[in-house]
Amino acid sequence: MQHLRHKPPRELLRPRELVLVCAPLRSNVNLSRIARAASCCGLTRIIASGHAKLDREVARDAVDVIQLEVRRSLPPVIKQLKAEGYRIVGLEQTTNSHDLHHYAFPRKTALVIGNERTGLTEELLATLDEAIEIPVWGLPHSYNVATATTMALYEYCKQFPDG
Amino acid sequence: MQHLRHKPPRELLRPRELVLVCAPLRSNVNLSRIARAASCCGLTRIIASGHAKLDREVARDAVDVIQLEVRRSLPPVIKQLKAEGYRIVGLEQTTNSHDLHHYAFPRKTALVIGNERTGLTEELLATLDEAIEIPVWGLPHSYNVATATTMALYEYCKQFPDG
Repeated sequence: MQHLRHKPPRELLRPRELVLVCAPLRSNVNLSRIARAASCCGLTRIIASGHAKLDREVARDAVDVIQLEVRRSLPPVIKQLKAEGYRIVGLEQTTNSHDLHHYAFPRKTALVIGNERTGLTEELLATLDEAIEIPVWGLPHSYNVATATTMALYEYCKQFPDG
Repeated sequence: MQHLRHKPPRELLRPRELVLVCAPLRSNVNLSRIARAASCCGLTRIIASGHAKLDREVARDAVDVIQLEVRRSLPPVIKQLKAEGYRIVGLEQTTNSHDLHHYAFPRKTALVIGNERTGLTEELLATLDEAIEIPVWGLPHSYNVATATTMALYEYCKQFPDG
């Protein structure tokens, strides 16, 4: 068995139609980790709010690939995404949230990610078509925001390996 | 739709039989991120080498749950795990590595994780029963080590939701 590090990436047959929408995060390190993972998954667009900025030390080449759109307010852009046919899916434990293990993503999904401490605000929750949650079995009973986003990215890409 | 943050965790019907084996990592932040995700997934054991230490700011309560065993050398403990019936699975792009999307984990799996820069050494590659790789579609063409481990944890737990 031999190393084959940094194999050429897979080719998407069509552009990814998954967009990330990030509430203001406490940490641009978390945002940058999300951006690196998203870029590796073939995403090209992250809409964020707050003091969002990518750190090249963490996000690496994703800084050059990911189109980071920083908005003062997220509900208008979510409304626009909805008008463009995107399903607005929050990554949050809520009443009636779906288990990510059994959730079938629509190809056109806008995944809405909440703040590390406070999650999604009432204002953002009100914009969602639905929410997905990730099973937790042990302490600290909540995944880091970038870890949770990574799991959702993985599941989406498994469902749409070719874009 | 209302918040239900920090719901009670799921119960495992039997203990997790997934063990993480970490080569010396450059960053204890990465190790601590892995520990938090692993603990949330119900794992209890990480075997590491090098200057492995968990940072409570990152790993949170996982520090109190995860049994971190620091060894000078990993091949002897891998040999022991193999004798106990664990399949030794490297998380690495190698010749003949399996696609994580289509890989069926044995319940008793020791997942071997390589260094951020250099991956798994020849010495560790020689101990593996097999390797799994995660599809990449875009730059920087490689996932962060904690991100990749998160994806493997997610896939294992989806296959064994009850332990």
